[in-house]
Amino acid sequence: MADLIEVDDPDDPRLADYRDLRDVTLRKHLEAQHGLFLAEGEKVVRRAVEAGYPARSFLMAPRWLDGLGDVLERSAAPCFVVSEAMAEQVTGFHVHRGALASMRRNALPSVEAVLHGARTVLVVEDVVDHTNIGALFRSGAALGVDAVLLSPRAADPLYRRSVKVAMGAVFSLPWTRLEEWHGALPSLTARGFTTVALTLAEGAVPIEDAVLGLDRVALVLGSEGHGLSARWQADADRLATISMAAGIDSLNVAAASAVACYVAARR
Amino acid sequence: MADLIEVDDPDDPRLADYRDLRDVTLRKHLEAQHGLFLAEGEKVVRRAVEAGYPARSFLMAPRWLDGLGDVLERSAAPCFVVSEAMAEQVTGFHVHRGALASMRRNALPSVEAVLHGARTVLVVEDVVDHTNIGALFRSGAALGVDAVLLSPRAADPLYRRSVKVAMGAVFSLPWTRLEEWHGALPSLTARGFTTVALTLAEGAVPIEDAVLGLDRVALVLGSEGHGLSARWQADADRLATISMAAGIDSLNVAAASAVACYVAARR
Repeated sequence: MADLIEVDDPDDPRLADYRDLRDVTLRKHLEAQHGLFLAEGEKVVRRAVEAGYPARSFLMAPRWLDGLGDVLERSAAPCFVVSEAMAEQVTGFHVHRGALASMRRNALPSVEAVLHGARTVLVVEDVVDHTNIGALFRSGAALGVDAVLLSPRAADPLYRRSVKVAMGAVFSLPWTRLEEWHGALPSLTARGFTTVALTLAEGAVPIEDAVLGLDRVALVLGSEGHGLSARWQADADRLATISMAAGIDSLNVAAASAVACYVAARR
Repeated sequence: MADLIEVDDPDDPRLADYRDLRDVTLRKHLEAQHGLFLAEGEKVVRRAVEAGYPARSFLMAPRWLDGLGDVLERSAAPCFVVSEAMAEQVTGFHVHRGALASMRRNALPSVEAVLHGARTVLVVEDVVDHTNIGALFRSGAALGVDAVLLSPRAADPLYRRSVKVAMGAVFSLPWTRLEEWHGALPSLTARGFTTVALTLAEGAVPIEDAVLGLDRVALVLGSEGHGLSARWQADADRLATISMAAGIDSLNVAAASAVACYVAARR
């Protein structure tokens, strides 16, 4: 059972994990340094715990204790009980979902483990926006993707905003980081995946044709600003495109991903 | 030619249109009251002007004047020239895109005018998030939608965040508000559209089957939280669904819309 600890000093050092949640730069630094991430809201906290992430601590106002009673029951981490005003003072915003938890990151699984048994995977190069990362996970999980691989520079799926947008899919969908960017696509080809890169480059074929009849497919998506790198485009087994209206040259990466996953699920 | 007016008092009342851009409640009130909206960044300001919205004023730091020289040349509205620090002080955030303009809203066109010649339209019920509204416009424009109709309570496509996410598509894609929610779908059916509602309700058929071979299609999308109202589901000519993975019961409305538009474009 978690110890319930009432805290009334907003500067209490035990609350350090919860400081200034809107300061992206500070948070990235703090979360990397301490190997933690923040779960926000009863549903997300519960999913994170059920997915096997150990809690470092919980922070909540008294009226949120009951909803997470069973989770607290089974945890040895402390639960800091604060007023709603103080929760706002510490985090820097009005915590309208109530419960927060600081979770320990687990070591990332190997690429091999993540790909085990997978038939459709998303491979994401340098997508840096947390909302987009969250959306890729949510749509991927709904539309039949089995795993997600992220390039070394892609945004963090466990960042608070990513988790929220993903509606918990970052916990249910297996994912990891590619250890190395350079040879990433050839190594997928070597594992029996056909790598299909979404691009506006010349010679790209409609996505339906690109995936038709394939067994194991890796859908490869590039960053928001510049799309895929030249290296990854050159390395992909196939170049595919989503046909668009005349005069319009791009879709948001999350929308493109949803369409590509949908089409791939019907290959 | 716009008058260039140097302003060095952040409380100058002529800057009222640009105050506290992050305060959603204040901005909604102020923008409705004065019939204005904010365009942010050289590209968006240019697109808004080219789409026929008259500028009330411009606000920018000196180094942004050149990029919009041709736009200022053709405008009679004043251009307030301020330091970057002062732009931040007035708007409440770091204006990294530089140029801002306060634009006058035009009267909304009639539903009839918006539907003229349209073959595929999006009908949006009560989507309240500006990011989602912007995403619906961006994907719709890219994937062959001809017009957008919004329920009375759907979020504002001209709100700063919507405009930004839409990448200007709120200016290029014809849209208006439905004057009345109750009879909206039957009136579209009467105009020759088959209304196809996206829903998880029983009896819904796969979206591909629902749109196959149709001439004029209205894709009907519900709000983020509760989906479509019972009224609109009952009134739709067809109920359609996007098949999802087992155990997952929803897609974000923007992702669902992208998939539906893509499928409808290939009907």
